[in-house]
Amino acid sequence: MRGKVKDGATILDAARALGAGLETVCGGKGTCGKCKIKIEEGYFAKYRVNSSLASIKAIKATPEKLISKTQQKQGYRLACQSRICGDVVVFVPEESRKGQQVVRKEATARKIKLNPAVRKYYVELTPATLHDPLGDFERLQAELVKKHQLSNLTIDYPVLLKLQNTVRKENWKITVCVWKQKEIIDVEAGKRTEGYGLAVDIGTTTVAGYLCNLTTGEVLATEAMMNPQVAYGEDLMSRISYAVKAKDGLKKLNQVIIKGLNEIAAKAAAKEGIKRAEIIDMAVVGNTCIHHVFLGIDPAQLGRSPFVPAIHHSVDVKARDLGLKIAAGAYVHVLPNEAGFVGADNVGVLIAEEPYNQDEMVLIIDIGTNGELILGNRKKLLSTSCATGPAFEGAEIRHGMRASAGAIEKIKIDPETKEVQFKVIGDDRWNTEVKNIGAKGICGSGIFDAAAQMFLAGIIDKSGRFNKKLDTPRYRVKDNEPEFVIAKARETSIGHDIVVCQKDIRAIQLAKGAMYCGAKIMMNKLGIDRLDRVILAGAFGSYIDKMSAAVIGLFPDCDPERVYAVGNAAGDGARMALLNIDKRDEADLRARQVEYVELTVAPDFNSQFTKALTFPHAEDKFPHLKHLLPEL
Amino acid sequence: MRGKVKDGATILDAARALGAGLETVCGGKGTCGKCKIKIEEGYFAKYRVNSSLASIKAIKATPEKLISKTQQKQGYRLACQSRICGDVVVFVPEESRKGQQVVRKEATARKIKLNPAVRKYYVELTPATLHDPLGDFERLQAELVKKHQLSNLTIDYPVLLKLQNTVRKENWKITVCVWKQKEIIDVEAGKRTEGYGLAVDIGTTTVAGYLCNLTTGEVLATEAMMNPQVAYGEDLMSRISYAVKAKDGLKKLNQVIIKGLNEIAAKAAAKEGIKRAEIIDMAVVGNTCIHHVFLGIDPAQLGRSPFVPAIHHSVDVKARDLGLKIAAGAYVHVLPNEAGFVGADNVGVLIAEEPYNQDEMVLIIDIGTNGELILGNRKKLLSTSCATGPAFEGAEIRHGMRASAGAIEKIKIDPETKEVQFKVIGDDRWNTEVKNIGAKGICGSGIFDAAAQMFLAGIIDKSGRFNKKLDTPRYRVKDNEPEFVIAKARETSIGHDIVVCQKDIRAIQLAKGAMYCGAKIMMNKLGIDRLDRVILAGAFGSYIDKMSAAVIGLFPDCDPERVYAVGNAAGDGARMALLNIDKRDEADLRARQVEYVELTVAPDFNSQFTKALTFPHAEDKFPHLKHLLPEL
Repeated sequence: MRGKVKDGATILDAARALGAGLETVCGGKGTCGKCKIKIEEGYFAKYRVNSSLASIKAIKATPEKLISKTQQKQGYRLACQSRICGDVVVFVPEESRKGQQVVRKEATARKIKLNPAVRKYYVELTPATLHDPLGDFERLQAELVKKHQLSNLTIDYPVLLKLQNTVRKENWKITVCVWKQKEIIDVEAGKRTEGYGLAVDIGTTTVAGYLCNLTTGEVLATEAMMNPQVAYGEDLMSRISYAVKAKDGLKKLNQVIIKGLNEIAAKAAAKEGIKRAEIIDMAVVGNTCIHHVFLGIDPAQLGRSPFVPAIHHSVDVKARDLGLKIAAGAYVHVLPNEAGFVGADNVGVLIAEEPYNQDEMVLIIDIGTNGELILGNRKKLLSTSCATGPAFEGAEIRHGMRASAGAIEKIKIDPETKEVQFKVIGDDRWNTEVKNIGAKGICGSGIFDAAAQMFLAGIIDKSGRFNKKLDTPRYRVKDNEPEFVIAKARETSIGHDIVVCQKDIRAIQLAKGAMYCGAKIMMNKLGIDRLDRVILAGAFGSYIDKMSAAVIGLFPDCDPERVYAVGNAAGDGARMALLNIDKRDEADLRARQVEYVELTVAPDFNSQFTKALTFPHAEDKFPHLKHLLPEL
Repeated sequence: MRGKVKDGATILDAARALGAGLETVCGGKGTCGKCKIKIEEGYFAKYRVNSSLASIKAIKATPEKLISKTQQKQGYRLACQSRICGDVVVFVPEESRKGQQVVRKEATARKIKLNPAVRKYYVELTPATLHDPLGDFERLQAELVKKHQLSNLTIDYPVLLKLQNTVRKENWKITVCVWKQKEIIDVEAGKRTEGYGLAVDIGTTTVAGYLCNLTTGEVLATEAMMNPQVAYGEDLMSRISYAVKAKDGLKKLNQVIIKGLNEIAAKAAAKEGIKRAEIIDMAVVGNTCIHHVFLGIDPAQLGRSPFVPAIHHSVDVKARDLGLKIAAGAYVHVLPNEAGFVGADNVGVLIAEEPYNQDEMVLIIDIGTNGELILGNRKKLLSTSCATGPAFEGAEIRHGMRASAGAIEKIKIDPETKEVQFKVIGDDRWNTEVKNIGAKGICGSGIFDAAAQMFLAGIIDKSGRFNKKLDTPRYRVKDNEPEFVIAKARETSIGHDIVVCQKDIRAIQLAKGAMYCGAKIMMNKLGIDRLDRVILAGAFGSYIDKMSAAVIGLFPDCDPERVYAVGNAAGDGARMALLNIDKRDEADLRARQVEYVELTVAPDFNSQFTKALTFPHAEDKFPHLKHLLPEL
């Protein structure tokens, strides 16, 4: 790949501009180390010694913990911290190449009651004459009252503009699309029965669209893509910071996602053989930051105490006002937010799972960069959000990576021999059977397995410390830090061992501790000490091993039979809101009834958090794990 | 004025492109003869003999009735029918120069009950904290319920985008603008009490905007301009034809009026020292064609039987959707239409005069290119529209012109000597006192006077024929057509006599006959033979002499004391709708209760029309004109 860039642009900027996929988690702040590249040709100047001859200038010094001295001598640098000031040739190592993330967001088969916001009605009008010169809109209105008992309808402005031609096109036979029995949002000549809607789940990393038939409820096409905002930062805080600080940052973040949704709509429509303009309704979920940026609302307040959203209530906004190219009069329904850190995606989960209609005490866990938790039953519901950090998504883990091809997603460790078996995405076989599978790193579900299996095999103890007496070549101490080899260099495509080190274990402890602590504080608040059910929501929840999650103590004790994953429940919630208007009202009502618990102001937060760092917990009992952890 | 134009452009196109004011009534169809110019330099080819050497080519032959053979030999042509194909020098005679029309649309002093659609509310919010992290919109909502009992408010999308910054700008003190107690359409930091609205009357020829204080009802500034659509045709049919046939015709017509209104808003706001974006509401009236084009609706159906509008009902459309640069969330309220030819301007008159609240039988006449009539009282109201043609506006009259400087607007003729006195716009004195006033032609009110005075002085008889035995040098026969000199060449600025000819009288008869016939058919339909009151609506109605109108028979007999002008009642109606939301509902209700009478399908239309051509009428009695017309 070859191209010209502006003088002073960073290599990361250049890669974005040229469309080269470079990994980045921190969004260009020089802290994640994922965008490591090698300068093959070109002179570069050290920090503060920016010679005028240099073709590469550093923004700040490269920390050794991200790139070793040796590698630095070989020309390795962070792409985001290197400004291009002349001709350069750059090599992107395999591990820094952005893989095509595996988007695992299939629609779950759920029975959804049909009561869509937009319905189609067909009428045949009596043509206007000099003796009956009633205007087109009133003529249509009268017939809609007569035939379909639809009174007091208004008509959206762009629809009014095409009304005259549409009524006359097929001899005064016309189909109207009516939103909420209130407003005509589209008109079509002749009789048209099928109505189409798009439910969208905008995740931090992936976006999925479900094209649905509004009259049958059927999912006609599913279309997914990486969230194009990832290029501006993988985690939400990086994006908020980009929105706040970069020139036109918010506008850019907004426009890439709108463009992305227009592509999803076009592709899904093409699959079904319809036009994008035939999509007459849309329902969207996403976390609060995604929600704000999608609507073009400044997300700055979400990154700043007291972390308040601009709006909780659902928003109905004209697609055209957002730049979405579906039917000109169509609305986009954006589901409500619960709190600053508990967004419309969680509300999607809420209306899909309906804990408010159940007697059982249920804990719903949505695992991501931010863990979102709902606890309760029909009597009372609490929610909270805990800053798990990006460890579960593979960031801040030495060899962590996203769930793309080559990522180790499952790990088994023999408690006796400490030998490792693993499976990578893109290959269904375990590594013992086939060599050279080409692992690149470890993704979230692999990290859960790694921690649980290392704990069960006695490689680490309940406090997370490595057992220094281990008798296996897989255990070693490097630069004073113990580490355990999961994949040997020859089993990888990156040419060196893939390990889990002490720091990685600490990151996992912090993440899981935050989740457990959130659940515990809410349980104490409700005065309960037992969970009837644990639901793992989110695509990620479907891929982690629930026993691994239980063993490391992601949540308090629960019967494993009653711990289950529900797939992309947020997306299902979006689909429900698309297909059933009562679900929208339910979402607005229930989102406000859920009481948000701010963990950081809970008096026992520190002590609870500290106790939760232990595998699986410092004090709590786990009767359901007795067979695995007999000492508990 | 000098410039380059595209090869093949007409001289009229060139004049428009260069910003030179050229008169045109027909909009470039070669039928009105108002755009007469003289080719000073350049060769021109005759119709169908378009020599390749010619620098001017004719589109079609110039009819002699528009430009005499002699003048044609001198180089006079119609600008709209002459294509430029080389270098030319063109002289524009005084009479073809577009004068600055006198825009006489002052707001009438009327008592208007205040109940505006948009009101301002001030609240002080409790700042968000970690213990009270409610979202901004919900925080605002709660306070609005508490302090102002405003529940279930929604917020317009662009307003939501600025909510966060606005609440934080003046320490959580905020003023909100609420539309119809339903929707927040603007927010301002701190306490802001004054609200501004703009009422607009878009006439075929002139546009007037009234900037009002929504809390006091006061008119703060009046701003008027020529309707910029005039450049594309002075009468409505020319504009409909332009919209239908020209490339992007509708778009151009729409954009010039939107641009015009943005200018009016900016100027009015500047006069008051406010920003255009502080205008938070707008109400608009205009005839059906204006209404359609303003909204961007194709007016083709209005020019085609059965002449149905796209919509009767009032329209509330976001200003931003129209391109109007007032507050981003503001609505524009466009008043309803009664029928294909009876538009929102007439509804403005209706709600200003409220005949539906009166016992007296009242005839409301709105005189223009189309005459619009309302007849009735609280029991029943009829309306109709009659094609008067443009005679009353100075078109199709040999020396007719619009009401701009130099137009003869008042005429007195001595019945004995047949001597004439006249007054021109721009000079308050009568011509007998001052010579060389510089008359250019006769405008509408002058034409009324001319016909009435010539009839009273016996220059024409009741059938409109000239008295051929007249003993005055002012009477003469030219090219077989009798004519009467109103202004002698030396009294004009155009260098020749200004006359009223037989054809002019016929045009006046057709116009007034159409009005009378419309009133008569409606009276017969209601079964009445007497009018209690005649209201002359429209700015024009204020300038015509009501006795002249009575004498020529513009309307059936009525006590002159009870004939009166109400000024720009359409504009007053717009102002009422701006300031009082009940008037909007009243307009929608009453507009649909008025029964539209289609004259051309009335069985006695032809006979009624023929009888109405006579001065003042062939059969009807005029007891109130006995002193002027003793023979009746």
